Amino acid sequence: MTLIQEKIRQSIGLLQEFGVDCWITFTRESDICGDPTLVFLAPGPVTWHSAFIVCADGRTRAIVGLYDQKGVEETGAYDKVVGYVTGIKEPLLEFLKDVNPRTIAVNYSKASEICDGLTHGMYLTLHDFLAEAGLAERLVSAEKIVSALRERKSAAEIGWMRQAVRATEDIFDLVVRFIAPGRTESEIAAFILAEAERRKLPTAWGRATCPAVFTGPDTAQAHYAPTGRTVEAGHVLNMDFGVKVEGYCSDMQRTFYVLAPGETAAPDDVMKGFRTIVRTVEESKAAIRPGVEGRAVDAVARSIVVEAGYAEFPHALGHQVGRFAHDGTALLGPAWEKYAQKPFQKLEEGMVFTIEPRLTVPGRGVVTIEEMVVVTRDGAEWLGRPQRDIFLVG
Amino acid sequence: MTLIQEKIRQSIGLLQEFGVDCWITFTRESDICGDPTLVFLAPGPVTWHSAFIVCADGRTRAIVGLYDQKGVEETGAYDKVVGYVTGIKEPLLEFLKDVNPRTIAVNYSKASEICDGLTHGMYLTLHDFLAEAGLAERLVSAEKIVSALRERKSAAEIGWMRQAVRATEDIFDLVVRFIAPGRTESEIAAFILAEAERRKLPTAWGRATCPAVFTGPDTAQAHYAPTGRTVEAGHVLNMDFGVKVEGYCSDMQRTFYVLAPGETAAPDDVMKGFRTIVRTVEESKAAIRPGVEGRAVDAVARSIVVEAGYAEFPHALGHQVGRFAHDGTALLGPAWEKYAQKPFQKLEEGMVFTIEPRLTVPGRGVVTIEEMVVVTRDGAEWLGRPQRDIFLVG
Repeated sequence: MTLIQEKIRQSIGLLQEFGVDCWITFTRESDICGDPTLVFLAPGPVTWHSAFIVCADGRTRAIVGLYDQKGVEETGAYDKVVGYVTGIKEPLLEFLKDVNPRTIAVNYSKASEICDGLTHGMYLTLHDFLAEAGLAERLVSAEKIVSALRERKSAAEIGWMRQAVRATEDIFDLVVRFIAPGRTESEIAAFILAEAERRKLPTAWGRATCPAVFTGPDTAQAHYAPTGRTVEAGHVLNMDFGVKVEGYCSDMQRTFYVLAPGETAAPDDVMKGFRTIVRTVEESKAAIRPGVEGRAVDAVARSIVVEAGYAEFPHALGHQVGRFAHDGTALLGPAWEKYAQKPFQKLEEGMVFTIEPRLTVPGRGVVTIEEMVVVTRDGAEWLGRPQRDIFLVG
Repeated sequence: MTLIQEKIRQSIGLLQEFGVDCWITFTRESDICGDPTLVFLAPGPVTWHSAFIVCADGRTRAIVGLYDQKGVEETGAYDKVVGYVTGIKEPLLEFLKDVNPRTIAVNYSKASEICDGLTHGMYLTLHDFLAEAGLAERLVSAEKIVSALRERKSAAEIGWMRQAVRATEDIFDLVVRFIAPGRTESEIAAFILAEAERRKLPTAWGRATCPAVFTGPDTAQAHYAPTGRTVEAGHVLNMDFGVKVEGYCSDMQRTFYVLAPGETAAPDDVMKGFRTIVRTVEESKAAIRPGVEGRAVDAVARSIVVEAGYAEFPHALGHQVGRFAHDGTALLGPAWEKYAQKPFQKLEEGMVFTIEPRLTVPGRGVVTIEEMVVVTRDGAEWLGRPQRDIFLVG
């Protein structure tokens, strides 16, 4: 069974579970501003107004522009694929009047960006169409369906992510030997990108900041591109990197210490910070299990870092990973405005999270580790080999 | 002046021209479902709720998550860049209360996908924020502003597109010598991609269908990936390809005839079709000038093809090109439902359009040419060298 066939079968079950009669992914010109859900429903981009419809009773239909019809038909995932020339309204309403669903879920969400692929103009267009058929009042958010479709990962999906993690770890192991005083952040990033290219692996996010490399104190904040700043003895260096395998991402951070002449280990201030981060990652992982809200896990991490005497990290402890480095709805984060309801979602088996606390060691740099775990029936499991020792370079 | 600085300056003038006090591009996690306008406003993707604000009185402000602040500041394009930690509402409302705009334009549009970058969930979020400040009723569509910003191209933008067209023509010239009976569509596509890579030029749209290559009768419709189908004598072959230079696209189609043994020219049925397409392209170009509605140009083309005895092509005559292969709002298209108000927009100087009529020669294949033109003060100008002779191969 292909991924599209598997996801459409899964979505029928989710509609039944959440008591929704019909789910429509409604999008156009998907290369410009497409719905991130489309990749589970179609073999490639679509051009004109397109509707991918799944019903709780098992009926499935795609309605697309004529030129996209053949590709969608070949997925073998839909009972019927309609290819139209002048407009989608007539074939769309014909099908919906026949189904007569009590609820029609569409992809919008205030809280969750990954479930918010319907643009406002397309919402208005669909609303106008449905109003003509007396169905507009039946629109609801598909947040629960889309979230579960992405979050409850199959064994195949988790397998691809394990491969992505493994490749990332292999590249980190190589970069340890490349980092040396005098090298710039940009040179280190170029080395990492060359290793990814040699393995024919795309980066998990845009190459400008994948990898991100930060060396020493007073660097730019996270999300900033590597610079000409050079590695110096006595500094802490960290990097953030990930790759994609079969479209599924890794997202990991590692911390390095640059030995000064005569040093054979990192000094106490650095090691105190590093051990705090290692312990925070371990205790966070121990707090993860199905049914727990993400904010509870974030709180465990946040209090360890603060009680050790460091400033609170200005971001969530961890996010889900999937086809995007930031994926899913449930979040290991604090109840801050920008995270909306995401930290209040309960964790479920099959979700893949990062754990990425961060702290600053004054005069040295930023210590941070980002691990990936999958939520299991009664806890969480590493997707790779967690960093337990600081990487010594120089 | 950088592109971002230039576009923000241009947008201030557009706000004054269209009588709008304030324009907000409101987006988040732009790698997942970002606003296509963002590339004119920020140096890279943004993570958390982000607002890029331009006012008719010349004030500019960006409000972004802390980790995106430094990169946006370095554009030098905003009076002030605010980096927040917990939520955007407070700094956003503080600025808007101070400006107190009569109208607040945001990026949604039923008709124009390129102006429809605001997701419905983000619209609801912004609406909620503004309602708290009594400003929600001031929201309007930014369609005119965003359209003009993309459509009225600068000399620099047109220069990059000319380079993209030139490179595409050079590659078409090479592929003429590569095509031969027995080659597959996939092999021809691979040859073209290798030439683009050798020039370090990204494709104008996804590589799966860029180039698209179709040989012989009864091929898949446009937008379908190259197949294992082989080139055969007596068949017509067409391809659709484009590259990007500095982020600006070309989008062009060319038609080839595969000579049979003993033939030195294409047969009459093929030449009748080819000459019809060449004439259609010429007369369409002659109909383009500022102030004309796109549907009038489409009608010229459609009637030539139909009067020559061929079926009407099931798509618009031409679309705009820019940072996407399909860009802008105004369209050289018929008044079909799916095109909404786009064919009714008046053409303006600086718009770049494709002209791409199509017809089928029974038993031979599809004849189609796609040229690119820029609208001038009193007409239109080719961006490249239009195809006047069918490419003979074999």
